[in-house]
Amino acid sequence: MEKEEIIELLKKDKFILYNGIELLEIGEGEATSRMKITENHLNGLGTVQGGAIFTLADYTCAAAANSRGKAAVTLDGQMDFIKAVSKGTLTAHATEISLRRTIASYRVEVRNEEDMLIATFQSKVFRKDV
Amino acid sequence: MEKEEIIELLKKDKFILYNGIELLEIGEGEATSRMKITENHLNGLGTVQGGAIFTLADYTCAAAANSRGKAAVTLDGQMDFIKAVSKGTLTAHATEISLRRTIASYRVEVRNEEDMLIATFQSKVFRKDV
Amino acid sequence: MEKEEIIELLKKDKFILYNGIELLEIGEGEATSRMKITENHLNGLGTVQGGAIFTLADYTCAAAANSRGKAAVTLDGQMDFIKAVSKGTLTAHATEISLRRTIASYRVEVRNEEDMLIATFQSKVFRKDV
Amino acid sequence: MEKEEIIELLKKDKFILYNGIELLEIGEGEATSRMKITENHLNGLGTVQGGAIFTLADYTCAAAANSRGKAAVTLDGQMDFIKAVSKGTLTAHATEISLRRTIASYRVEVRNEEDMLIATFQSKVFRKDV
Repeated sequence: MEKEEIIELLKKDKFILYNGIELLEIGEGEATSRMKITENHLNGLGTVQGGAIFTLADYTCAAAANSRGKAAVTLDGQMDFIKAVSKGTLTAHATEISLRRTIASYRVEVRNEEDMLIATFQSKVFRKDV
Repeated sequence: MEKEEIIELLKKDKFILYNGIELLEIGEGEATSRMKITENHLNGLGTVQGGAIFTLADYTCAAAANSRGKAAVTLDGQMDFIKAVSKGTLTAHATEISLRRTIASYRVEVRNEEDMLIATFQSKVFRKDV
Repeated sequence: MEKEEIIELLKKDKFILYNGIELLEIGEGEATSRMKITENHLNGLGTVQGGAIFTLADYTCAAAANSRGKAAVTLDGQMDFIKAVSKGTLTAHATEISLRRTIASYRVEVRNEEDMLIATFQSKVFRKDV
Repeated sequence: MEKEEIIELLKKDKFILYNGIELLEIGEGEATSRMKITENHLNGLGTVQGGAIFTLADYTCAAAANSRGKAAVTLDGQMDFIKAVSKGTLTAHATEISLRRTIASYRVEVRNEEDMLIATFQSKVFRKDV
């Protein structure tokens, strides 16, 4: 896929749009996304739901993985929750750990506006020719 | 916490409500939840977004973990995506792997209406006295 | 590969032999192995080193994965350590979670002689035609 | 524990000694170890057994985690195998991701002599006062 097609596809993601996540940048094996925390992201304790943070990280990873000229299907995601957060904006940045013919892996850091580490994420994707 | 309080807390989770996830049952170290797939859960390819499946699994795990008389804070979540799905209802069932004084672990299976395994999830929680 | 060839290969594993791990059984997508704890398996605290438990689990997973007629290359392994142990025999049993064309996943439970759960392991393999 | 006591403890690890792993350096939240590959580390295919690589990574993580003035008990380890290797020396370097009161997390990279990434490892520890 061409980069434009990938961005097109990523921007049609309804779950992402519905939950207020925005793709900021997509490079070669890397990407950055952002989520402005709203009431809808909070759990019963008033902090951002783990699923919202996972969604931000996983989407950023998908953007990075799809920048490599093949369609990338996510195989797994390991999420580590480090700090609870209840307001502000979260930014996720994905970088490439390894790029093999059919498997690639990515690491994502989710940080708040004070640049504190909120969560880490690691994921493997399966790469298919398109 | 009493079971009623936990259920109260779980039912006030705005991200869960917003994304159409419903807690069906909560037992001793286990729980079941359900998500009827709608347009809002889909990614750019028209299949359920990984973040939606994670949210379902993680919430079900939280329900199971909080059934044990202490407040459970999720430390991590390992998601394995097995099969893409685009319609119907997903059901997640969480069971307890281990229950120690401060750490407990849970395993969740997410299945579709044909009882096919869509994803597996494993998570550790930190248990605090409340 | 034929089952006999796989068993041949598994039994030539020097790290396994060197560390006293024994393959007990190999079925369709499952396997069982055993490790009698000796002085050489212990860490500085006198309990079995995590690496020894991982090796037992990972090897059992490889046996199960290679029972499926393709060569299986291990992509990852998630280990959860539940209980420290310092003597006796550990038994690992691997079962299949999913079997797809190129990816399969396995779950392993490591138990002691009292059938207590010592550790859990989950792993994905890449399947190649041989 | 004092740093000297920790090093003492780490150097008494019999599984580590038996498998030829050597602690090179221990800093504040970081550590480096090395394993010269021998016949005993190889699997049936002649490449280094995953368990040997895990052991190297996990031990390096334990060294980093125990540098922080509390006894660190390993809760889990996520291993990603990136490249098979059959000779030379592997070096593992652990760095700290997060340090909280009772939980800390570490990331380890295992590289060969050409500085190629062989495997990545991430682990959480439980910190106890000693």
